[in-house]
Amino acid sequence: MSNTHKTTLEPEDTLNGAGHYDPNFTSHVISAIGPKTDPRLREVMTSLIQHIHDFAREVHLTVDEWTSAVTLINRAGQMSTSTRNEGQLLCDVIGLESLVDEITFKKAAAAKDAVTQSAILGPFFRHDAPLRNLGDSISFDTPKDAELVYMHGTIMSASTCEPVEGAELDIWQASTNGLYEQQDPDQIEHNLRGKFRTGKDGKYGFYCIRPTPYPVPDDGPAGELLHMLDRHPYRPAHIHLIVIKQSFKPITTQIFDAESKYLDNDSVFAVKDSLIVDFTPLQGNEKAGLELKYDIHLAPVD
Amino acid sequence: MSNTHKTTLEPEDTLNGAGHYDPNFTSHVISAIGPKTDPRLREVMTSLIQHIHDFAREVHLTVDEWTSAVTLINRAGQMSTSTRNEGQLLCDVIGLESLVDEITFKKAAAAKDAVTQSAILGPFFRHDAPLRNLGDSISFDTPKDAELVYMHGTIMSASTCEPVEGAELDIWQASTNGLYEQQDPDQIEHNLRGKFRTGKDGKYGFYCIRPTPYPVPDDGPAGELLHMLDRHPYRPAHIHLIVIKQSFKPITTQIFDAESKYLDNDSVFAVKDSLIVDFTPLQGNEKAGLELKYDIHLAPVD
Repeated sequence: MSNTHKTTLEPEDTLNGAGHYDPNFTSHVISAIGPKTDPRLREVMTSLIQHIHDFAREVHLTVDEWTSAVTLINRAGQMSTSTRNEGQLLCDVIGLESLVDEITFKKAAAAKDAVTQSAILGPFFRHDAPLRNLGDSISFDTPKDAELVYMHGTIMSASTCEPVEGAELDIWQASTNGLYEQQDPDQIEHNLRGKFRTGKDGKYGFYCIRPTPYPVPDDGPAGELLHMLDRHPYRPAHIHLIVIKQSFKPITTQIFDAESKYLDNDSVFAVKDSLIVDFTPLQGNEKAGLELKYDIHLAPVD
Repeated sequence: MSNTHKTTLEPEDTLNGAGHYDPNFTSHVISAIGPKTDPRLREVMTSLIQHIHDFAREVHLTVDEWTSAVTLINRAGQMSTSTRNEGQLLCDVIGLESLVDEITFKKAAAAKDAVTQSAILGPFFRHDAPLRNLGDSISFDTPKDAELVYMHGTIMSASTCEPVEGAELDIWQASTNGLYEQQDPDQIEHNLRGKFRTGKDGKYGFYCIRPTPYPVPDDGPAGELLHMLDRHPYRPAHIHLIVIKQSFKPITTQIFDAESKYLDNDSVFAVKDSLIVDFTPLQGNEKAGLELKYDIHLAPVD
């Protein structure tokens, strides 16, 4: 003798929202996390599973749609190399990198004990930029359509406003063709890139070019997503910088040209009002027609 | 003259929950979706962006944590091939494939007009399984530790209980070493795989083996995630099946051995009570010591 089993697929009237689905499924998945799991990982994965499941139920996500997404994400991994991170770019175009940047920045600011090194470097940072002398230029074989800029300012303590000696400023920017030197065989190595150290007065100064807008690489899955979402791939004109000095919290940021296009619709959502700067005319300097004065206030580590 | 700008990083007392962050950021990202976007894609991406951002704020996700996740997901893509889908497996271990299966099944059942083909095939389905004769075996060079089973039943209309002639049943299962034939050079092609068509009486019957539990591939990012979450990689013993017949809705499912380990903690959360079946002793049949009677009720397309 044997039991009789059946698989029945019977029509129902309608889908009555997310409540239509097994109410215990998500808690079952979360409760599979074992007792030896790192507490922070448990916290993160519990929230991730809850939100991803809520999303799927909310939009009644189908197998076909989910399969398309898996294929797109797999292709992003397959396209990624040591010089291209397509998974990161996919996150960027939905604002996730900018959001975790905000979170990390505020977490670091709130922490009593941290010199948090976590920060967005972006795909074009290089650890080995050369140390240059104050007053040097980072622009070699400057293209004809570039405007030269004298960028300078004082690095000081946010709590005392005293100048900070020996702070290291690491700067990098794209050329007017939208390419960083490692993307562009026509630029010499370390073009538009360099480190500078402040003197006793906390001052720094160097020559660079006025940045110009450029598109993020749009020949992969992130570009396809932007296209499907009827969005452009452009970033507003910006300069990257990192400031490091022992006993202060490091800063990694980007500053944006106030006159640039795309300030209101950066394809990776990195613009904050406090990071918008003005390039102003500079008189009587043969090396540059523009000036950018930019002071940097470092938070002491308690 | 130039303006003075500054970047300030000032300590704050605490993070006051998700409300601490820019309340307009997520709506800014969502509103970037352009007017030419497909309405369904807009619906899906709006919900996805909202939930992913809510998740990041809820757990105060840091850049380091996000970077680790991007690296893991990129590696899943790099590991994926025509015979291995690691991105899919990552979703499976957080229950997402099972959830979209439930959603798709209910959506198909609710639709008046659909013969929805969307269904979980899993990574080991092959479109080209051979059509076999009723009463054949799908097991060749049966391993010594396998128990042979006569699986049979009637395919009928869920609305009239009339038998359905000419329904096609596509069956596949792993061997007792946990491997499907395309993973295992020691199995002949199409071992433990085959299609059967019902006769006038709607009946089908064939010989197979009692399925055994096996681990999902755990040598990649999905395995690392399972390990970090202190979870095992095992699936309960199951047989895959697809049933297709014109003017009925197709069924893709798995049936699970009631006596298997891991029914309560399937590593990919696919078990449903209605899919658990009993293998019972079979007397007087030289070809098999067990029987599985399994009737299948197909929903007519209106």
